Amino acid sequence: MNQLVYLLPAAGILALLFTFFRSRWIASQPAGNEQMQRIGAFISEGAMAFLRAEYSVLAGFVVIVGALLAWQGASEVESSPLVALSFVSGAVCSALAGYIGMRVATKANVRTTAAAQTGLNQALRVAFNGGSVMGMGVVGLGLLGLSILFIYYTSVFGASAEMDVAKVMTVLTGFSFGASSIALFARVGGGIYTKAADVGADLVGKVEAGIPEDHPLNPATIADNVGDNVGDVAGMGADLFESYVGAIVGTMVIGVAMVALPEFQQHAPFGGLSAVLLPMLLAAAGIVASILGTFFVRVREGGNPQIALNTGQFVAAGLLLVISWFLVTGLLPAQWTLGGVTYTAAGVYWATIAGLVAGVAIGLITEYYTGFGKKPVLDIARQSLTGTATNIIAGLGVGMRSTALPILVLAGAVILAHEMAGLYGIAIAAVGMLANTGIQLAVDAYGPISDNAGGVAEMSRLPKEVRARTDKLDAVGNTTAAIGKGFAIASAALTALALFSAFMAVTGLKSIDISHASVMAMLFVGAMLPFLFSALALGAVGRAAMAMIQEVRRQFSDIKELRAALDVMRRNEGVEHEYWSKQDQAVFEDAHGKAEYGKCVEISTKAAIREMVMPGLLAVVAPVVVGFAFKWVTGSGAEALGGLLAGVTVSGVLLAIFQANSGGAWDNAKKMFEEGVEIQGQKYYKGSDPHKAAVVGDTVGDPFKDTAGPSINILLKLISVVALVIGPLIR
Amino acid sequence: MNQLVYLLPAAGILALLFTFFRSRWIASQPAGNEQMQRIGAFISEGAMAFLRAEYSVLAGFVVIVGALLAWQGASEVESSPLVALSFVSGAVCSALAGYIGMRVATKANVRTTAAAQTGLNQALRVAFNGGSVMGMGVVGLGLLGLSILFIYYTSVFGASAEMDVAKVMTVLTGFSFGASSIALFARVGGGIYTKAADVGADLVGKVEAGIPEDHPLNPATIADNVGDNVGDVAGMGADLFESYVGAIVGTMVIGVAMVALPEFQQHAPFGGLSAVLLPMLLAAAGIVASILGTFFVRVREGGNPQIALNTGQFVAAGLLLVISWFLVTGLLPAQWTLGGVTYTAAGVYWATIAGLVAGVAIGLITEYYTGFGKKPVLDIARQSLTGTATNIIAGLGVGMRSTALPILVLAGAVILAHEMAGLYGIAIAAVGMLANTGIQLAVDAYGPISDNAGGVAEMSRLPKEVRARTDKLDAVGNTTAAIGKGFAIASAALTALALFSAFMAVTGLKSIDISHASVMAMLFVGAMLPFLFSALALGAVGRAAMAMIQEVRRQFSDIKELRAALDVMRRNEGVEHEYWSKQDQAVFEDAHGKAEYGKCVEISTKAAIREMVMPGLLAVVAPVVVGFAFKWVTGSGAEALGGLLAGVTVSGVLLAIFQANSGGAWDNAKKMFEEGVEIQGQKYYKGSDPHKAAVVGDTVGDPFKDTAGPSINILLKLISVVALVIGPLIR
Repeated sequence: MNQLVYLLPAAGILALLFTFFRSRWIASQPAGNEQMQRIGAFISEGAMAFLRAEYSVLAGFVVIVGALLAWQGASEVESSPLVALSFVSGAVCSALAGYIGMRVATKANVRTTAAAQTGLNQALRVAFNGGSVMGMGVVGLGLLGLSILFIYYTSVFGASAEMDVAKVMTVLTGFSFGASSIALFARVGGGIYTKAADVGADLVGKVEAGIPEDHPLNPATIADNVGDNVGDVAGMGADLFESYVGAIVGTMVIGVAMVALPEFQQHAPFGGLSAVLLPMLLAAAGIVASILGTFFVRVREGGNPQIALNTGQFVAAGLLLVISWFLVTGLLPAQWTLGGVTYTAAGVYWATIAGLVAGVAIGLITEYYTGFGKKPVLDIARQSLTGTATNIIAGLGVGMRSTALPILVLAGAVILAHEMAGLYGIAIAAVGMLANTGIQLAVDAYGPISDNAGGVAEMSRLPKEVRARTDKLDAVGNTTAAIGKGFAIASAALTALALFSAFMAVTGLKSIDISHASVMAMLFVGAMLPFLFSALALGAVGRAAMAMIQEVRRQFSDIKELRAALDVMRRNEGVEHEYWSKQDQAVFEDAHGKAEYGKCVEISTKAAIREMVMPGLLAVVAPVVVGFAFKWVTGSGAEALGGLLAGVTVSGVLLAIFQANSGGAWDNAKKMFEEGVEIQGQKYYKGSDPHKAAVVGDTVGDPFKDTAGPSINILLKLISVVALVIGPLIR
Repeated sequence: MNQLVYLLPAAGILALLFTFFRSRWIASQPAGNEQMQRIGAFISEGAMAFLRAEYSVLAGFVVIVGALLAWQGASEVESSPLVALSFVSGAVCSALAGYIGMRVATKANVRTTAAAQTGLNQALRVAFNGGSVMGMGVVGLGLLGLSILFIYYTSVFGASAEMDVAKVMTVLTGFSFGASSIALFARVGGGIYTKAADVGADLVGKVEAGIPEDHPLNPATIADNVGDNVGDVAGMGADLFESYVGAIVGTMVIGVAMVALPEFQQHAPFGGLSAVLLPMLLAAAGIVASILGTFFVRVREGGNPQIALNTGQFVAAGLLLVISWFLVTGLLPAQWTLGGVTYTAAGVYWATIAGLVAGVAIGLITEYYTGFGKKPVLDIARQSLTGTATNIIAGLGVGMRSTALPILVLAGAVILAHEMAGLYGIAIAAVGMLANTGIQLAVDAYGPISDNAGGVAEMSRLPKEVRARTDKLDAVGNTTAAIGKGFAIASAALTALALFSAFMAVTGLKSIDISHASVMAMLFVGAMLPFLFSALALGAVGRAAMAMIQEVRRQFSDIKELRAALDVMRRNEGVEHEYWSKQDQAVFEDAHGKAEYGKCVEISTKAAIREMVMPGLLAVVAPVVVGFAFKWVTGSGAEALGGLLAGVTVSGVLLAIFQANSGGAWDNAKKMFEEGVEIQGQKYYKGSDPHKAAVVGDTVGDPFKDTAGPSINILLKLISVVALVIGPLIR
């Protein structure tokens, strides 16, 4: 193979070097006064404790599944100890990316607060650089792991004949499986953690005791901030790591069909391997584009951080647009014929761009349906005037309605990409969408860091202008979070389709015919799984939140300083702190730091670990059971399993959009009241009845948008990847 | 053709005769005192006014579509004026069945109240006989219309060659299309009507003004009772009429493939037509079984009406089980070969039974998830202790979880029926499920009649023991409603699959391959439609309820007698009426009859008619656009449209179960508090905080379970039927 292939691990290492230097830079920033550092340490320790607990459970899972893969391979496929190697590598890379990202994010939060004491741009830089470590860590480890394994496996099996490359890919899919496994538990566990803490903190702290968000008297407040990191940094990172790897692997598998074509064999520099290597090369280009993009993220005092972030992303997207033209046309033959159809390199390029554009479009649509002040959110605010019930109905309605446009965009992209470059086109569209994951994820992870920074400012009782700056960063974070969620769903959908196509290639299926009863039946069963999975996630959050609520109530009644301080606050309601009596102020001061934050962190951690098991197993077991049951009864499980995949993908995407957008819209409808909103000529504020109704909607939306919805992303990719791994055994 | 074919219209006429005599019997029952008769007249006039308004809009729709069908036919298919004839007949039969059923139901309600003055059994008889008119009217008109048209069309086209029978069936599918069109508007319009009235009556009447349900001072109370008839009698009737006709027609279309087989040609009495006629003959058998079953519905004073209803249904099911064995084995050859596969008459019988059993099983599962005192409902009640948000999350979770078992049963039935008898097996399973629609629907319609009877008792201020008897009937009605909803969804799913198979037969599609990009894309779009459709329905209810709320508030402030009476009630809160001061009692008496019920009825009517148009058009237009767009671009729209159908069916069934069961479970969780429920050692009653949370859940669930959920049943059948009708034009 051409030595240029070593450019791939080199790009991965470049990303990791970037990560390293950015981490050092973050660590060198001032971390604020003693109080801030103490709070920062609480959050960071809580987050790391969760990761340790989670990873020690997952280690067991990885060892068992790895052993099963090695053993199954020993009997059925000659090479399967290597599948186990891929699996373990994928799991380790994903876990490592999560670890690095979280570690830096929990350092960046308090340093963002400290930087906000000097100015907005400095705070933005810290927060964004903190996020970029997560982003670049994910793409760096993803590409490095994949490319090294690929190079190693081609040295084992050879890389010139189609059969050999097919073997390489069969073994390499294990990497994607490993990544998916970690992602599933990280997303589900993180989602349960964050929402148990959030709902618990809100219901007892805000609603019952009447203390503001992030107030140090609330025992659940540290757990709540830990949850932001666990769910939105580590969870989102693992999610995109999975999409990133899945899309690349899926495309490579489909690219195997081109290895033996004479048009490719005669084509330099990679010959038959060009189509197989293209997705990794696009990813490498994305790394370079993302790194360059990060240098454009800067804002002046009084400026808009949103524009800064957008500029970085647009620069990266523009660069990718250009580089990928030269990559695709340089790498692939101008045209070739496969299965009687003629394809062109230009077609592949346009398919890539279709994916990139669809990702951006779906993100923007998401922003419309969930954005602050946009019509759908205003509708929900208006319906809050007649009470909680109408607020809830309106939010559910907005979520359902918001599925229409993204699905049409997705369907259009699928048809277009296929028209341009066949199944390979659908898969490469997913790669196009995900190539810039580096900067995309940096922007996503920036959100929870800013959110945390605000929390630290509040808990450390810093001056108002500091909180104002972190609030400005945080508000932008909400928009990026909404767009990021839309993007994550869209990429999960395209990745699942790429894996679906790869599954057909691996099993040699020529068609999956819905008019076959078994396919239709499994289409139903597959479509049901995301509903069941969501129900499990919602139930888990409910139970975990209940435990949290009881603990917070216990502390409020058992710890006498807290009890006294709550009394004082209640007595002085509506009065600014400085006008309280000296004695009241003393009681209040005395209570600080008396809340037992650690107990709440522990409860969230234990609940999340315990509750993530069932939904996790459902995702892994369902495709295995269906595949082998049909293989056993009818001789082949491939087509029925294909029906299951299609069902999971279609219904999962819809349910994910519905839940994410309902939740996002409720959240912002509540925020509109908190800023004050005029409806039918009257102005409503925080504390009004409509606001209370909107708070309920927001609480319902929390597990929707942060637990069940995002977890479904993983479900559909994981089920596809499991199918891909067991494909050779059930065909 | 054998003269025995005239048994089919004869069975239809038998059902209609039964309807006629039962109606006369109802009319001859005492209608109670003057006050009761006045209230009964209000309800009946309101209901009839709605039907008139609805039908006059639909008449326009039917004329336009009929003309389009006739014109399209004139250019493309020689016989299409006959398609138009079928279409109009189907629409008229469905409308007529709705008219008859509603007319009698709104007579039976007040007579049930009157009968409850003498005893429980007498009241049960009136209510059930009232419902049986709807049930038998639907099956009688369905079978009569279909069989007469079939006999006529075979006389036009001939009935011996496969080509001729295929033409007959192409023309006959119009009947199903007509039935579906009416059903759609009846379900959607009725659903919007009933929930606008209900939500309006609850939110202002119960919550704001604090007056009990069905209280004569509430201006929306008559509209609420009208809504029960419009939604649960006419809407449910149209829904099952559509399923009934759709399942029969779908099976007949697939049966055409057997016309030319020698095994059939040589077989008496119907020769090649046996498989085509079998579904109608099963329907005729079901009519006889249902009529006999109704005679077993009787209860002693102090007995359980549930057992009486169950007995009737079990007798009918047992009879059908036996009769259909003789029918199937007598009519079909013992075995035959089609497309290389050998089928048997016994296999067809077992497929029929699989459908029947699946229908019952799904009904029972539904009852478990939504039933009073069952574990899922108790869970929701428990989660109400921590407030509205957790109640809502729990209800959504129960609804999602409740999809799992019905889907597994459905998938099992599909696989089994297909294993036994191929595509014909899947379709005949739907017929097996629906053959006893006569008594099934009688039991369903019994529910709203009993509910209304309770309302009349309350509004006429009859003695408590009368209300106790009607409450007993009503409680059973809630269970039958839950089971009925599960059954309606299951039958819609199987009917859609039958129509799907028929669509493949008509278009000559050999496969619908999910791995084709267009099919996958349309699978996504199809799956999205039920979400969009639900959102439209929820939005419509929200807007209509808002109008109702404003009207009720206006009356409370403009009508001085009402205002005074509300004051008096508030002042005497918690005090029994008889202990009020004389003056207060006088003010209270004075207000009776002062509410302007008619205004509320008018608002609901107008809103329902206006709001049913958009979702209705979506259902009709979507398949036409997709079919012709793909035909235009790619040369054939059949496969892409097949993908759309599969998507709509799968996601529609799931969303319908989710919404119906969430709503049902919320409803009963609220009722548990109203009866008093013990949770964690403490007893909670009506008026407690958890009860208030549960009321919000119930209000959210109302449009879920009575508007959006049931409307989806129609959506999936209608889209399938439209596809079937345009099938010959887009292949």
